[in-house]
Amino acid sequence: MVNRQVTSRRGPGRRPGSEDTRGQILAAALSEFAAHGYEKTSIRGIARLAGVDPALVYHYFGSKERVFVEALQFPFNPAEIVPKLVAGGVEGLGERIARLFFSVWEDPAGRERGLAVIRSVHTSEQGARMLRGFLIQELFRRVAANLDLPQPELRATLIGSQLVGLISIRYVLKVEPLASMPPEQLIPVIAPTLQRYLTDPGIAPAT
Amino acid sequence: MVNRQVTSRRGPGRRPGSEDTRGQILAAALSEFAAHGYEKTSIRGIARLAGVDPALVYHYFGSKERVFVEALQFPFNPAEIVPKLVAGGVEGLGERIARLFFSVWEDPAGRERGLAVIRSVHTSEQGARMLRGFLIQELFRRVAANLDLPQPELRATLIGSQLVGLISIRYVLKVEPLASMPPEQLIPVIAPTLQRYLTDPGIAPAT
Repeated sequence: MVNRQVTSRRGPGRRPGSEDTRGQILAAALSEFAAHGYEKTSIRGIARLAGVDPALVYHYFGSKERVFVEALQFPFNPAEIVPKLVAGGVEGLGERIARLFFSVWEDPAGRERGLAVIRSVHTSEQGARMLRGFLIQELFRRVAANLDLPQPELRATLIGSQLVGLISIRYVLKVEPLASMPPEQLIPVIAPTLQRYLTDPGIAPAT
Repeated sequence: MVNRQVTSRRGPGRRPGSEDTRGQILAAALSEFAAHGYEKTSIRGIARLAGVDPALVYHYFGSKERVFVEALQFPFNPAEIVPKLVAGGVEGLGERIARLFFSVWEDPAGRERGLAVIRSVHTSEQGARMLRGFLIQELFRRVAANLDLPQPELRATLIGSQLVGLISIRYVLKVEPLASMPPEQLIPVIAPTLQRYLTDPGIAPAT
């Protein structure tokens, strides 16, 4: 994943700021995220490696988060998804998360992107560090900011543990009967777990 | 994992049937499991590749399951663990599974072995196929044989999904606060999920 090639499209009609530049920025970003982790990577550092002005990185992507999501071909962008999910309140949120999960993972393109991320984080400490920083800084911070519950980060990691395990058993290991069960049958089985991790008042251990 | 070296200890005092032979059998077994998956690997095939009589493989290991557990340095043997776990009945079984889980994974040697297995199954289709066959034929068959519940295989895969995800978030990705939470605080959070997967009568979809 880290060594993804940038397709070259240099032709006679090429203008500055084309798809080429965008691809160069994403390749540089992957390299920077892999080398330094999410937190310690800066737009400035990515721009330097890509040989462009930082303003151009902002112009194309708007934020470090967006660069990360595009560079890793993440199947969804937390900045867009989390506020929508949480907008309906905590009631039924477990089921909405389960539905979103399957809408991404049952789609072949989403699954392919997601599996590349999952493989990378399980094979290299670089991959793990990239994703860990992103999850903590972006995904969980957003969940915490949008949910009025004690221990929002712990709740988010617990939900993550059930969903990541579902990916492993269903989409990586493909163990039956879980692998072939229709999402409509799985959602009512998984949603109560997610809902309990969201709302159980017992999930607030002393720190 | 598949290319693990066999340490050679040939010396003047070496007798037939020594540790060398045992190591040769385990190396041959890894190779056979990787090439053909768990189901299609036979003790006869392992013996042929190791250049020994099948009776010797039985002598050392007793079963294909045991060869697998030792060849992959699996952190526990389902043949021993499952009957003990289930012996106390379904009441409190979720908590007993959670306690066993942490007793294996909080032990540095168990964790190291377990992580090697987890990495292997997430990186190669060979690894995934080996573990899938083993889980279906040995672990889930045992759970099903020992538990008088509808859909025992589905319940086992659901429990597996929560535990594998816990491994990913806590021990591979090391995402806080889940990564540093003491097991004694996590057990009461995870056990109800496992218990619900065991006993919820709603988990019996039409087949």
